[in-house]
Formats: sequence, structure tokens, C-alpha cells
Amino acid sequence: MSRLRIGLLGCGTVGGGFARLVDAERERIRARYGVELAIERILVRDLDKPRHGVDRALLTTSALDVIDGDCDLIVEAIGGVHTAGTLVRRAIARGRDVVTANKALLAAAGRELFRAAADNGVTIGFEASVCGGVPVIGALRRGLAGDTIESITGILNGTCNYVLSRVEQGVGFADAVVHAQERGFAEADPSLDLSGQDAAQKLRILAEVAFDAPVRREVVRGIGAKTRGKLIAEARRVAGGVELVVEPRRVDIDHPFARVVDEQNAVLIRGRAVGEVFLSGRGAGSMPTAAALLSDVLECVRTNVIAAVA
Amino acid sequence: MSRLRIGLLGCGTVGGGFARLVDAERERIRARYGVELAIERILVRDLDKPRHGVDRALLTTSALDVIDGDCDLIVEAIGGVHTAGTLVRRAIARGRDVVTANKALLAAAGRELFRAAADNGVTIGFEASVCGGVPVIGALRRGLAGDTIESITGILNGTCNYVLSRVEQGVGFADAVVHAQERGFAEADPSLDLSGQDAAQKLRILAEVAFDAPVRREVVRGIGAKTRGKLIAEARRVAGGVELVVEPRRVDIDHPFARVVDEQNAVLIRGRAVGEVFLSGRGAGSMPTAAALLSDVLECVRTNVIAAVA
Repeated sequence: MSRLRIGLLGCGTVGGGFARLVDAERERIRARYGVELAIERILVRDLDKPRHGVDRALLTTSALDVIDGDCDLIVEAIGGVHTAGTLVRRAIARGRDVVTANKALLAAAGRELFRAAADNGVTIGFEASVCGGVPVIGALRRGLAGDTIESITGILNGTCNYVLSRVEQGVGFADAVVHAQERGFAEADPSLDLSGQDAAQKLRILAEVAFDAPVRREVVRGIGAKTRGKLIAEARRVAGGVELVVEPRRVDIDHPFARVVDEQNAVLIRGRAVGEVFLSGRGAGSMPTAAALLSDVLECVRTNVIAAVA
Repeated sequence: MSRLRIGLLGCGTVGGGFARLVDAERERIRARYGVELAIERILVRDLDKPRHGVDRALLTTSALDVIDGDCDLIVEAIGGVHTAGTLVRRAIARGRDVVTANKALLAAAGRELFRAAADNGVTIGFEASVCGGVPVIGALRRGLAGDTIESITGILNGTCNYVLSRVEQGVGFADAVVHAQERGFAEADPSLDLSGQDAAQKLRILAEVAFDAPVRREVVRGIGAKTRGKLIAEARRVAGGVELVVEPRRVDIDHPFARVVDEQNAVLIRGRAVGEVFLSGRGAGSMPTAAALLSDVLECVRTNVIAAVA
């Protein structure tokens, strides 16, 4: 039985959910994949904050305890660009695989990080960075790799979709934003959601995976009290690269997006050979995002087993 | 630039589509993955049948020419259990990776073949065997691997869905079956589709991937002239294993399956952590299935690169 030692950075909504999910899934994973998952250390800011279902003895306020310790793989659930970026770079340099839900970091520094990972012979898993539990990154990187992707259209921000769904039901815009925050899927600063920037970050990641071509034009419009419809993100091939647009649009009642309500996310991928492939599900929240992180951890296990056997 | 030499078994709807897709995607794949795809030999029954877009010089009627030749990987697009099974077993024994769209073979002999593949250090790619171009196998094997799957419900047979969609529009049952055959997505023997057996084969494959548990109960009912609704396949955990049911059901107008019409396929996966994930798209046809085969070929390339670098 091999043992995978995980260092976890952050123990908030996503990190705490990941720690609990590892406990819940440990037996199944041992039986099925022949690997014992062990979270060795967890980086937190405050050791004394109550954390349901998380072993206090694992907590540390020292990032170096986690990264320079004995772990094989780092799960990054801090969010944000600067601290998270410093820690991910250090983990890569020390030969750790990295699994992250951090769309802001990947949108800002993805190319540099993937190059560093390749140079150091490690992988970066990032399924959790877009659409939470909906495995759209895997679909683009693997399941649809054989096809030329022509466009990707999505509802990528659960907060905006929740707010606009509520507004459609007669709730005021400001109240709907507060509800989204109370339900725990709005960003700490909701202007990142409402401005369209969060959707734009995710769209950049999807476009990079699908098209591997330069961005020629990017338009980002957010939502406000007068917006009706849905916030739609679209990436498509244009001459010499890719065009990215995030903007509110009316959605035809027959379109598959029409029934994507509340915090749901959805992606419609158009491929030259496969035609339209549609994926939807819960795009945010503690456990769906944790499940995507854990799936990527298992992918690292698989990759390393292949490498070890070879 | 590495070169991947492919032996193709079968050049009908799926095999011919695969050969044309490899030509269409060769440049993109070379640029992106750094690998040159080359179909070395193609097994056919009749050398003289006209085949649009396929190089006649590659054709052979000798399976051993293909399997025992210089290829690295075998794409099996013959279908059926006996001949295809013999050839796949031989390919595995000779150390070739295998990519297949053959749900009948996997439903009948999947466990034995995967064991043989593991013993011989090769992989079997089978994304194309279920739901054509919709990457549901990858979603279950990888993207959702971190979660405990509780149930899988799907519209897995495009012919039945097409026929029932037409019947709903007032077309007679027998006419609708003929239309499905004319459009090229019915099995050669449509009773495999109409009896529910084709959906049951695919459901067995999905259940094996998702649950890795014994089948405790299996019910398969097909469709006939009096059937209304949709043919639904469902796998779910029960005490000691899995229960599989294929049967016509009425679908509520608000259910995501309600808008899955004609030859479309769809799968609704319920995971303990992720909640519901929905996937849909073209479940049959030459090019969607070919795209799934090619995606699996690229997955073999990726796996072998990891193994070679290690």
C-alpha cells in the first residue's frame, strides 16, 4: 500500500471541505486505488478558529512547515494571486505536484507556472479552478482532445447566475447579492463576481486549455441592478487567435442555458467533429470544489504510478 | 518529433470516420502534442469497396498484417464480440495499446480484457464505447474520481431516443425505425437497440467504471409501437452491489432529459459531494465516435510520454 502525503494550504470553505472529504473517501480510495491518503500538515492563519471535522494537531501557521516538510503533493486552497503564487512556485521548485482551485492565480500566471512545473517534472491539477465539481477541464484536456474546438460558451459565475435568477423571481438586486454571500458561494469581495472578472478569469483558463492560441480581443461586462438575462462567457476562434467575451445576454427559452438556475454552472463546447457537448452542475461551494481537488489528487497518483512502473 | 503508428481494425462508419479525422487533425496534433500520427494499416473485409478519404494502399484483409506489424497502438472499430475479441486479445498479448468503441465486447469480456491489459503493461481506451462524443467515461474515471458516485441515469441509446422523439411528433414507429437506419446511427440489427440491450451494455460499462461493485439485479425492457416517453438507463448502489434498470419512462417536462431529443445522449451523475452533474451531446454517428477514439489515442500518447520520461 503506497502512501500519499498531502500538504494543505488553507482551511476555509474549500480547504476545510477538502480535509473532510479526504476523511470521508479514505476507505473507498484505499480499496479502489491502493493508495493511503494522508494530510500531513494544514496551513492556517489562526490556529484557534474552530474547524469542524479537522484534526487540530495538523494545523500550522508556517507555510514552510507544509511545503518544505515531507509531503509529496500540495493542495492550494488559499486563493488570491500573491501569497498563493509564492507558495505554489516554491512547491514546484521543491518537486511537489500541485493541485489548486485558484482561478485568479492561473489566469494571472498560468503559463509561467506550467512551464516551471514542466521544468521540475511535476504536474499542476486545476480541475477545481473552473466550474467546481463539473469536470470541464478534463473534458477539454482529455475527453475532447482529439477534436478541434471551435467555441466554448458558459455560465461560469455561480454568484451572478444566482443573483440574476433571484432578480427574475422579483427579489431586489442588493438583497439577492446578500443572499448569495450568506449561502457562501459569493467571493469575499462580490465585485469580483459582479464585474464579470471572475467569469473572465475562468474563461481565460478554458480558452488556454481548448485553443492554445493568443487572446486577440477581450470584452468583459458585468451585471447590475438593471441586468436581465444571464451572464454569459464565450471564447471562440478568430483570425490569429481567440476572442473572449463576458457579457449579460438574454437566453432563448429553448436554449440549454435557460434551465441553468441559481448557483449552477454550465458549459457548451462546440467541436468540429463532436458537435455540441453540454455539461452542467454545481459550480461552486465547499464539497463540489473539494471533490474536484480530490479527483486531481488521484490523477497525480495515477500519473506517478505510471511513471514509477515504467 | 515522435511518431505513433496506428493499426486500424475496420473501416466502416466509425473506422472510416477515424481515418478521415486523423487526416484532418494531424497538423494540430503535431503542433500541440509533438507527435506525428500515422495510420500504418487498415483491416477491411472488401478491398474494392469505395472509401471516401481513405488511402487504398493502407488496406489489407489480413488481421495479422495489422496486429503483428509495426504499429504501436490498435484502434478497434469492427464491433461485435467474437472476431473483435480475438483480435483485441492478440493485440494486448503483443504489447499494443488498444482503443475501442466496442461496447458489446467490453460488456461481455471487459474484466478479462482489462486484467490482460494490466498484465501486459498496456492500456485500453474505451471513451468511444458509451455516448459517442460525450466524454462520460473520462468524467467518471478521472474528473469525478474523488467522489462516491450514488447513481447514474442516462439516455444511452440514440436510436431509441430518435424513434421515440419521432413518435411523439406523430410519425409511425416502424417508419421512425427506418429513418434512424437511413441516418446511419441504428445498429445493423435494430433489435439490439429496440430491445434495450445496447443501452444495457453501455450501462454495465458505466456502472463498472463508477461503482466497481457486483451487479445484484438487472432489468432490461425495450421499446415498441406503444411506448411513449424515453428509454432510461439507471444504475444505483444497493446493498452489496449495484442495480441496473433499462426501461421506458415518462420524463417530467422540467427534467433535463426532457430536452434531450433525436439521437442525442445524456447522462446525469449523482455524486455524494458534487451533487448532480449533467452531460449531453451526440451519442452516436461517425465523427463524434471518431473524435472519442482519437482523444483516447492522444491519452495513450500522454501516458507513454510520462512513462518514457520517468
